[in-house]
Amino acid sequence: MARSAYEELESRYEVLSRLSSMAALLRWDSAIFMPPGATVDRSDDLVALETIRHHLGSNQEHACLLAEAESRSEQLNSWQRANLKEMRRLWMHDSAVDPELARAIVKLSGKLVADWKQARKDNNFLVFLPGMEIMVTLQREIAEAKADYLGVTPYEALMDAYEPGARCSQIDVLFDELAAYLPDLLNRVAERNSGCAGNTPVRGPFDISSQIKFCTQLVREIGYDFDRGRLDQSDQAFTLVGLRDDVRIAVRFCEDDFSCSITAAIHETGHAIYELGRPARWYHQPVGRSRGGSIHESQALMYAMIAGRSREFISYLAPLVIEAFGGAGPAWELPNIARSFLQVKPSLIRVNADEISYPLHVILRYRLEQALLNGDLSVCDLPGAWNDGMVELLGVAPDSDAQGCLQDVHWSRGLFGYFPVYALGALTAAQLYQAACASSPDIQLKLSCGDFSPLTSWVRKNIHKQVSRYDTNELIARASGNPLGTEALKTHLKQRYLHETVFGIGEK
Amino acid sequence: MARSAYEELESRYEVLSRLSSMAALLRWDSAIFMPPGATVDRSDDLVALETIRHHLGSNQEHACLLAEAESRSEQLNSWQRANLKEMRRLWMHDSAVDPELARAIVKLSGKLVADWKQARKDNNFLVFLPGMEIMVTLQREIAEAKADYLGVTPYEALMDAYEPGARCSQIDVLFDELAAYLPDLLNRVAERNSGCAGNTPVRGPFDISSQIKFCTQLVREIGYDFDRGRLDQSDQAFTLVGLRDDVRIAVRFCEDDFSCSITAAIHETGHAIYELGRPARWYHQPVGRSRGGSIHESQALMYAMIAGRSREFISYLAPLVIEAFGGAGPAWELPNIARSFLQVKPSLIRVNADEISYPLHVILRYRLEQALLNGDLSVCDLPGAWNDGMVELLGVAPDSDAQGCLQDVHWSRGLFGYFPVYALGALTAAQLYQAACASSPDIQLKLSCGDFSPLTSWVRKNIHKQVSRYDTNELIARASGNPLGTEALKTHLKQRYLHETVFGIGEK
Repeated sequence: MARSAYEELESRYEVLSRLSSMAALLRWDSAIFMPPGATVDRSDDLVALETIRHHLGSNQEHACLLAEAESRSEQLNSWQRANLKEMRRLWMHDSAVDPELARAIVKLSGKLVADWKQARKDNNFLVFLPGMEIMVTLQREIAEAKADYLGVTPYEALMDAYEPGARCSQIDVLFDELAAYLPDLLNRVAERNSGCAGNTPVRGPFDISSQIKFCTQLVREIGYDFDRGRLDQSDQAFTLVGLRDDVRIAVRFCEDDFSCSITAAIHETGHAIYELGRPARWYHQPVGRSRGGSIHESQALMYAMIAGRSREFISYLAPLVIEAFGGAGPAWELPNIARSFLQVKPSLIRVNADEISYPLHVILRYRLEQALLNGDLSVCDLPGAWNDGMVELLGVAPDSDAQGCLQDVHWSRGLFGYFPVYALGALTAAQLYQAACASSPDIQLKLSCGDFSPLTSWVRKNIHKQVSRYDTNELIARASGNPLGTEALKTHLKQRYLHETVFGIGEK
Repeated sequence: MARSAYEELESRYEVLSRLSSMAALLRWDSAIFMPPGATVDRSDDLVALETIRHHLGSNQEHACLLAEAESRSEQLNSWQRANLKEMRRLWMHDSAVDPELARAIVKLSGKLVADWKQARKDNNFLVFLPGMEIMVTLQREIAEAKADYLGVTPYEALMDAYEPGARCSQIDVLFDELAAYLPDLLNRVAERNSGCAGNTPVRGPFDISSQIKFCTQLVREIGYDFDRGRLDQSDQAFTLVGLRDDVRIAVRFCEDDFSCSITAAIHETGHAIYELGRPARWYHQPVGRSRGGSIHESQALMYAMIAGRSREFISYLAPLVIEAFGGAGPAWELPNIARSFLQVKPSLIRVNADEISYPLHVILRYRLEQALLNGDLSVCDLPGAWNDGMVELLGVAPDSDAQGCLQDVHWSRGLFGYFPVYALGALTAAQLYQAACASSPDIQLKLSCGDFSPLTSWVRKNIHKQVSRYDTNELIARASGNPLGTEALKTHLKQRYLHETVFGIGEK
């Protein structure tokens, strides 16, 4: 019997998925093991892969198959219908864009990442400027081409690739609420903590191989499966996404600080456990992909921040840290180590920010990239606008671009419209965690012996196994009972940083 | 102006080349860093990649372009004509084979390699038998399909994929001469050395990380470029081939022996320097690929065996080894260490064999795989036939299949018709080295201070930069002045093992 159009599409999308997986592995390898001389040829490999993927994913035959399958969609079950819907979405993203343009962006990003590294190293924005100007122009072209196709604004069209269905009308409301609330909360927390027991900094160096060993053991206990993954050292923390049984995490280790690497390792573990929980049957199908950036980020933040900095987990973690890295003196007493994970202080670098500051870093980028794209801000004015925004939102200003607008790799890699997912993820994490704890009181209790498994069971069932079966809004509402809002995050932050008294914090 | 058919083909072959490069990187990753749980999905990735490569490399449009380019070949220069000839050869290999069959072999080989590992570990041939029977059947189908197309015998059709233009009539003559000469030479060397100073075995363990450090330093001095490569630990030594500026070598290290890993590291360095010397302009074109298995192997054997075991290089290497690994006692005296690299003794394992025994191991496999394919030998009788052949050619018999017919991965990976290149490589290495030394007396002299650069200059010009511009026979004749024969190897072996007196060997 001949295959139906839908079946043919499933078989084609599996191939497309595997091509994307290979590109992901090539990028992972570039970050971890590739020798420096291979940069140019590797970038050409990625262009070739993108050319093939684009060619296979947006040709005419493909369009006919989609139309035919849609005309008979009543014969499909609910997973298949959701799959077909996602196929159409991917097809729109691919076919909206001239393949030459898609290739140009892949090619430019190879070079721009190198420029960015150099610029950041030398603290010289001018090294980054010319390539970034071209990148903004190309992104604008992509945004406009997709906007027509998807019937949304250009910026929404870019976001849609990372956060399907994202609309500024919804995000603006959420972000405005946060921008109105968080700076004030920062002040109230600072006020409350003045006079409380402070944090005495511990002194390194902390041997990198001991940190790797510690994080390896910790994430294994949290539930990361080393039979289907590995942990490596890298310049930037990330999770290799796209290989079904091979979800590798990479962490940046610094000799003078163990807490960043621990937080990063748990964060990437949250991402990885989501990926490892995607159903095998649908793994290489569009519906089997993770739902989008904000849900993905929510899993990472829930593990690293909401659960990972709960007093229950900190009381488990701090003694282990002391055992592994501990020295003499008051800095190494238990309350001080515990407090080191709970510091709140506006600072310059997003990836090291505390839970309260973090969304403000994101809101800054959300505003700036919209201004860059719609022409309200030119690239040469970016450093100044960045610094002004930092002062407005966080009350601190970087004294160098390396610590300012050159800190993130995203724009160099062509990721415009990506940043909002980080703050949406924080909102989602708080809301899902609240629902999870309400349905399973075990979750918090078990964290005090380092056991994440009740939490993992809940998210696996309510989030991971659902992958892209529902829209993001529907997925959140089904899992938590409510549409996404800011209340859960506000409640969580108030509770942890204003009301709880723990490890000497908040005790006068 | 529209692109010519030839130009269009160049652009398509670049993409095909890059797909093959990615498959090579996936295989490298599988061997070095992939977590164990990913085996099945990785094998499916490779099947998908092969499907796409096959589809792009053998479709009808492609056939038309080839025909059109050939009809206007008088407009092409000599490199382009050679390129077109190689395109046609690749096209014949691809289009001769039903894509289902090609996929089936890729798929089976993933499983059979796992079976083979298990069988070798448990010394249980029965674990390997059922998969190997299917593999032989599939290889027979491929061989017959290609034989019709190429107008050669089925076995020659398989060899042609690894050793373009290989004919049994030529190989049989060369191998019969070796099979007649080498066993007798082994006896004469044994007779001469009886009564000479022997080799006192050194005792390990030798720390693996010290061995890695030593080999890294050594291959860097020999000329391996770590800016375009890296050295890793692996179960089997191999070189990652196909990434222009990223030619990684992998070496097996054992705690109780440093000499195997040193030899393997130099061997892979020979392969890598060939790869790194391929001209960038033609790198991703068929004419820019290495000429074939025997030339490739000749470079590795020339570095590791012919130059690497010369008295000049050994007198440089032995003191370094003593400095790095040395202990007390007579075993660690210079002549003894030097002699350890020059032992000649028939043994069971091909990859550890001395220069005289090595071709005999290969001749055995050449005979057996022909017998398997033409049905003269059934897979269940392979262990017995292997052991009989070992006795006949080398005078030793394995007491286990793990040390016998299960020692090589090749058949599991679907590499039938590959083995002959090893012995052809030995012949080629000797003949090229003889010519190189005749034209540049510096080559041998400089080896005594560890300097391979005069040798590298000669092979770079005469072999590496020529890539696939000429047939193998023509390439060898141009470089050495003669068609490939056995005289140079015989002369080399006689000279080194019967006439030279060095480090106490041959001195009564």
